[in-house]
Amino acid sequence: MDLFEAIHTQRAIRRLKPDPIPDSVIRQLLEAAICAPSGGNRQGWVFIVIRDPDVKARLAELYREGFQELLKIPYYRDAGSAPPDSAAGKMLASAHHLAEHLQEAPILILACLKTEGTTPGITMGSSIYPAVQNILLAARGLGIGSTLTTIHRFRDGQVKELLGVPAGVETAALIPLGYPFGKFGRPPRKPVSEVTYFDRWGRPPPW
Amino acid sequence: MDLFEAIHTQRAIRRLKPDPIPDSVIRQLLEAAICAPSGGNRQGWVFIVIRDPDVKARLAELYREGFQELLKIPYYRDAGSAPPDSAAGKMLASAHHLAEHLQEAPILILACLKTEGTTPGITMGSSIYPAVQNILLAARGLGIGSTLTTIHRFRDGQVKELLGVPAGVETAALIPLGYPFGKFGRPPRKPVSEVTYFDRWGRPPPW
Repeated sequence: MDLFEAIHTQRAIRRLKPDPIPDSVIRQLLEAAICAPSGGNRQGWVFIVIRDPDVKARLAELYREGFQELLKIPYYRDAGSAPPDSAAGKMLASAHHLAEHLQEAPILILACLKTEGTTPGITMGSSIYPAVQNILLAARGLGIGSTLTTIHRFRDGQVKELLGVPAGVETAALIPLGYPFGKFGRPPRKPVSEVTYFDRWGRPPPW
Repeated sequence: MDLFEAIHTQRAIRRLKPDPIPDSVIRQLLEAAICAPSGGNRQGWVFIVIRDPDVKARLAELYREGFQELLKIPYYRDAGSAPPDSAAGKMLASAHHLAEHLQEAPILILACLKTEGTTPGITMGSSIYPAVQNILLAARGLGIGSTLTTIHRFRDGQVKELLGVPAGVETAALIPLGYPFGKFGRPPRKPVSEVTYFDRWGRPPPW
């Protein structure tokens, strides 16, 4: 698949078939992940591939608890009262479906980051989310649906306990993966011209 | 270019030619950026494309000050005493070159994130670094060298003042872009088997 086709049609796919993903394909996803950059090339990433049905089921319970917490946040509460056929309404319906069916995804990947020695804050994410994005793009290239979620963080302590994640490690993203019921396609986004400045905040592009 | 070829050969390129990057190519980079996911599809990203020579020169000064701060961190101090032909030694020499020549890159992109309403911490990065990774991969696909840097953050207040970045916005990455002196190629990484567990922390892959 062409690089730009993959980039332009990688969108959140939250309705996933339970069909298994072969080991060789899982490896391709992870081989893509580790090519990403990380601060000082530290490679503090750890990927936990979860496919044990009991572990998935327990994680899904915690995820659903987290989803209820998420819905209390004004941004998502507002989305809940948006028309069902609006972009926000569709996103929420799809997110709700995922929460109900998370355990049916053939695999979940929990992307973790060993954070000792790195500066707390947003830039910590620069050492793990590029790898996560490589997983999403590789999945797109292999015809596998995925979405980047962080909802498990509402139950972070219990998730870490369930999976034995030690202290000094952040759980950055939980990525459900499976062959899609839905279709890949252009994701709904604001145009570049609305989010780009030149040389100074507020100065529009010259084109 | 093939998706997997791009992913597998995207590496930090810090020696850049001063040749200009056409507007149409800059747009392709940004069109790739905005296809990335962000929490709740908020799209709180703003990309400042910097090509004014005076602004670049001042940013480069601040970057060099930041680089000196970086070298005080034990991880980088240790890299400084590594053999010049080791991976760490080469990385540091290349980072040093970039700090000295940052203003010569034809463009810099400062990737920013409006953070109001989002939870502080590592997961904030999930709404901007996937877009940054899309820029790096798109650059690779277009034959443009790049690297993800966060060193400007050591002088974050001055950088924001210089560029007029308002309160409530984080500066997540400064990406120098230019046609490369060096070559693209497989980045130096630990193998997947060393960074992957199955179903539980510490349990190795079945393959």
